[in-house]
Amino acid sequence: MRGLIAIRPSAALLSADLFHLAYRRHLPLLGRRSPIVPLRTPNSGGRRLATISAMASASKAEDARVPPALQLAPPPVSKFKIALCQLSVTPDKDRNIAHARKAIEEAASKGAQLVLLPEIWNSPYSNDSFPVYAEDIEAGGDAAPSFTMLSDAARSLQITIVGGSIPERSGGHLYNTCCILGTDGKLKGKHRKIHLFDIDIPGKITFKESKTLTAGEHPTIVDTDVGRIGVGICYDIRFQELAMLYAARGNLHINVGAHLICYPGAFNMTTGPLHWELLQRARAVDNQLFVATCSPARDTGAGYTAWGHSTLVGPFGEVIATTEHEETTIVEEIDYSLIELRRSNLPMGSQRRGDLYQLVDVQRLKSQ
Amino acid sequence: MRGLIAIRPSAALLSADLFHLAYRRHLPLLGRRSPIVPLRTPNSGGRRLATISAMASASKAEDARVPPALQLAPPPVSKFKIALCQLSVTPDKDRNIAHARKAIEEAASKGAQLVLLPEIWNSPYSNDSFPVYAEDIEAGGDAAPSFTMLSDAARSLQITIVGGSIPERSGGHLYNTCCILGTDGKLKGKHRKIHLFDIDIPGKITFKESKTLTAGEHPTIVDTDVGRIGVGICYDIRFQELAMLYAARGNLHINVGAHLICYPGAFNMTTGPLHWELLQRARAVDNQLFVATCSPARDTGAGYTAWGHSTLVGPFGEVIATTEHEETTIVEEIDYSLIELRRSNLPMGSQRRGDLYQLVDVQRLKSQ
Repeated sequence: MRGLIAIRPSAALLSADLFHLAYRRHLPLLGRRSPIVPLRTPNSGGRRLATISAMASASKAEDARVPPALQLAPPPVSKFKIALCQLSVTPDKDRNIAHARKAIEEAASKGAQLVLLPEIWNSPYSNDSFPVYAEDIEAGGDAAPSFTMLSDAARSLQITIVGGSIPERSGGHLYNTCCILGTDGKLKGKHRKIHLFDIDIPGKITFKESKTLTAGEHPTIVDTDVGRIGVGICYDIRFQELAMLYAARGNLHINVGAHLICYPGAFNMTTGPLHWELLQRARAVDNQLFVATCSPARDTGAGYTAWGHSTLVGPFGEVIATTEHEETTIVEEIDYSLIELRRSNLPMGSQRRGDLYQLVDVQRLKSQ
Repeated sequence: MRGLIAIRPSAALLSADLFHLAYRRHLPLLGRRSPIVPLRTPNSGGRRLATISAMASASKAEDARVPPALQLAPPPVSKFKIALCQLSVTPDKDRNIAHARKAIEEAASKGAQLVLLPEIWNSPYSNDSFPVYAEDIEAGGDAAPSFTMLSDAARSLQITIVGGSIPERSGGHLYNTCCILGTDGKLKGKHRKIHLFDIDIPGKITFKESKTLTAGEHPTIVDTDVGRIGVGICYDIRFQELAMLYAARGNLHINVGAHLICYPGAFNMTTGPLHWELLQRARAVDNQLFVATCSPARDTGAGYTAWGHSTLVGPFGEVIATTEHEETTIVEEIDYSLIELRRSNLPMGSQRRGDLYQLVDVQRLKSQ
């Protein structure tokens, strides 16, 4: 039965022992029978080890990702410059927009073909501010001046922008949303933060984004002029599964994995020194791809103090460029040939144990 | 159809479009119908997006692990001392065994209730040496003097030993094997390195364990007097999936996740400085548990030069104790209450997105 595994995600349902599961495989071209293997029968009165003989032979690495991991496609460019704009953010939205535009233009003048902005760069980072600064991105124009600026800048400068994030209002909900703009200024993708930042470290940092924000429903990976880019926002970086998905898939229409994952993020003064660089380097080395992060500059007078330290990490987990907490823009080269090099050094893609573990990309699976 | 997902791991089989897949769910107690949802029909002439309406509601965190992650059980001790014996290793096997025993006894005299030894501590680390130094662990006695010493030491000192690793001969195969001994001296578990160390960084480090060794077939988690311990050996640490499994399961008979993962390992002078600490800290912080590693001491005259730097990491990814490359024993306290604390600070277990990704523990699933 290699090729088919039944998974039953719910503990409650599992323990209720209510399932009858059967699956069939037809392989007439190979001249095999079509077995029916009941993994468990209802009310069987206990757990029963099913004999799934052919599954025992499913030890191949490609089985470690479901659907199988996709091969890396040659990127449209092999080397290019990325800019990480570690912007100062104020309560003045117009200023923030003009300030970001200036930084993007300066980065482009230094040769950056991809510009990454920080998380929540048009608004103070607070649950009180999110509704006030939120924009209707789908409406565009005056309803979304931050988005409109990004679109104008991308088109006029002919660069790709991973636009950090801004509060988005849509359908009565608020999201923490990253817009990805192509060199034609068009919206190529929109990532709504999937894992909301709800943490409680007493005496250090307590924040509940879920008070005001709604979580996104989709991983986001886009095909740009500077490669396939997966996007996560801040707390999303803690969930290794998301990076694993991006490394193994394109979006539902793109059949190759990501070259680069961008994480706009505003880690704080507690988790920043502990985890910010660690998590970026881990995502890069475990998935053998580039990771870029961009934080707001630190403002110790703000209600939420960002750690800063925007960073570019290579596919060996090596820090290629980083900075402290002041406002600055890093412009640095990405060389995608390093991905293939590191994957040939450590061929983890062919060394995984699909007979022992499998990461399921639920939405990609459902689309097939 | 929440509760059941059909996964089809093989790209070749998927693309052949030869499947007829149907699954049924019976939920009579809940009064629901038992739908039959053909995800794809044979020769349907293309990919078809199946409507799996109820699956769309499967957004609960517990679905992110299949079978569902198990709750952490209270460990049998809350605080205890662990020893990491960073041993020098020579070609003299008798000396290595006596030397290791002395280190274990010294560690116990300092209050260590758990002793961790390095990878391949009874033999030089080389494909030429593995067959020569290999032992028949199942036979025991004179056929396995290293194992016998560990068993004697554990029983006489009444401590738990995670015995690094030694070359094991079994059924015509050689394995890189870690023995876990209980306080009664009995073998509680045996981990055979799952991911063999086959890497090629030209001019730096090239090694192919698969020339002589066979890979193990099972993750290994054991229930000891000092908590639930998952075991990986060296290169196993690169595969984040293994640590994710350990955090989510006990072994097939133990229904709680690991408190601690022990990785005996001999990283080298290239990957050691780049990745050794990074990977340990990543496994700890991503899975919110303790990680302990133990390397041989460095011998620059040996054919394979170990990085050293045995380390204990806490569930926030914090380095609790570490060392340089010389021979030494670290004795340090583990406080398991930190696991609960960090999981309450960052409740990742309830924040995962089982509607987007699921890690399948294939063997645990098959056992149910």
